[in-house]
Amino acid sequence: MERLKAFFKNDRFAAAAGIELVSAAPGQAVARMQLAPLHRNALGTTQGGAIFTLADFAFAVACNSHGTMAVAVNVSITFLKAAVAGLLTAEAREISRNSRLGSYTVTVTDETGAVVALFQGLAYRKTEALPL
Amino acid sequence: MERLKAFFKNDRFAAAAGIELVSAAPGQAVARMQLAPLHRNALGTTQGGAIFTLADFAFAVACNSHGTMAVAVNVSITFLKAAVAGLLTAEAREISRNSRLGSYTVTVTDETGAVVALFQGLAYRKTEALPL
Amino acid sequence: MERLKAFFKNDRFAAAAGIELVSAAPGQAVARMQLAPLHRNALGTTQGGAIFTLADFAFAVACNSHGTMAVAVNVSITFLKAAVAGLLTAEAREISRNSRLGSYTVTVTDETGAVVALFQGLAYRKTEALPL
Amino acid sequence: MERLKAFFKNDRFAAAAGIELVSAAPGQAVARMQLAPLHRNALGTTQGGAIFTLADFAFAVACNSHGTMAVAVNVSITFLKAAVAGLLTAEAREISRNSRLGSYTVTVTDETGAVVALFQGLAYRKTEALPL
Repeated sequence: MERLKAFFKNDRFAAAAGIELVSAAPGQAVARMQLAPLHRNALGTTQGGAIFTLADFAFAVACNSHGTMAVAVNVSITFLKAAVAGLLTAEAREISRNSRLGSYTVTVTDETGAVVALFQGLAYRKTEALPL
Repeated sequence: MERLKAFFKNDRFAAAAGIELVSAAPGQAVARMQLAPLHRNALGTTQGGAIFTLADFAFAVACNSHGTMAVAVNVSITFLKAAVAGLLTAEAREISRNSRLGSYTVTVTDETGAVVALFQGLAYRKTEALPL
Repeated sequence: MERLKAFFKNDRFAAAAGIELVSAAPGQAVARMQLAPLHRNALGTTQGGAIFTLADFAFAVACNSHGTMAVAVNVSITFLKAAVAGLLTAEAREISRNSRLGSYTVTVTDETGAVVALFQGLAYRKTEALPL
Repeated sequence: MERLKAFFKNDRFAAAAGIELVSAAPGQAVARMQLAPLHRNALGTTQGGAIFTLADFAFAVACNSHGTMAVAVNVSITFLKAAVAGLLTAEAREISRNSRLGSYTVTVTDETGAVVALFQGLAYRKTEALPL
């Protein structure tokens, strides 16, 4: 898991968004992002893309946690509550996995524990090992 | 439309990702993003969050183009082709709209015209005017 | 809740598919469907529409359980395991709700407890009372 | 294509719902369903499952039209307009396809041409030939 965490430090887009990997385990990951002016959209709330990126990063770590490469093929995200400031936490959990596909849910919560977004991701699992 | 375009320059997250608004019309918008190392994930391809942010930005402009505020409530995105370099273009188009909800599809293509991602977004339409 | 359960007996499409409401509570519902030749597609497995209808029925009961009418606006469903025979159970659970929108997840499991499908539904909540 | 059409007559759930295949071509299919009391939910409008089944059937024909078996892994459907009576038509169109995955959009319209539902489906393509 230490190598996996080190590997995901190379995600430049997530790093630029201030996203940090908190923990990783087989089929699971937790990431967080401290909201800042950088994350705002034109309406002054958090850009959907910033919330998506946080959730997607946790999803990527979780679906790549079994040692072979996995890539997102489909995501459905529902935005439940506007977030402006504070710390957002994304928790990814594996729901199902076979040799080719894996399904994950990611819950994004704010500091009060309220659900900001619900993310359901489907990953295609390749046969290549992850270059850890 | 010029005011709308000026208003969306305030999207700081989109601006930081290098996203540019090309055109806007009622129910429509086109945006683009020149891929750079900034957009890469740990696997060296474009981060899903970067592609989502591009599509979501075009969607936001399109669903706010009628003068009243609209916010995303649900998005389904399918990633069809990995993209590493070049210019990505997102075209948002309104499929349906009533007083409360609007539905949009956004197609993200690369320079060859190949579809990189397909985005289907649902917006909740508020009654407040957009502060243009 | 007894009136709500009686009201949903009027769902003719669900009844024709052999779907039965097991329980209902505020924001929650459980329904089940005994698989039969009726539910099969051309490939001989359960038609996606039959599984969707089961999950959607549980979702409808859950989102209408607060006394006012609610209608589905968006659903994302992921099919995780083919099902051919036996009893399928759908459990709907409310994730979030405000005056206009409600978000629900429905898990469809087979008799072994394996997840057959994962359903994420968004409902638009009207102001009219349900005609119970 | 005649064999493909004959094969899909074996979809018992679609047949019980009164769904008819109008046409099929590589990557495309059109199906229709005449609304009847059978399709109603407890609120008296068309059950979401009936509309889904119609769209899913057109999707199944389109994604199986290349001769090898394909199964739905994820669908996102947005319900745009309530439908009570008349003829619904579903048109499925292939957006993208590689050796393992195919992406399709299905548009469900009523007799006036208004869009009732928008369906985005992802299919996993097996290597087995379809038993035509």
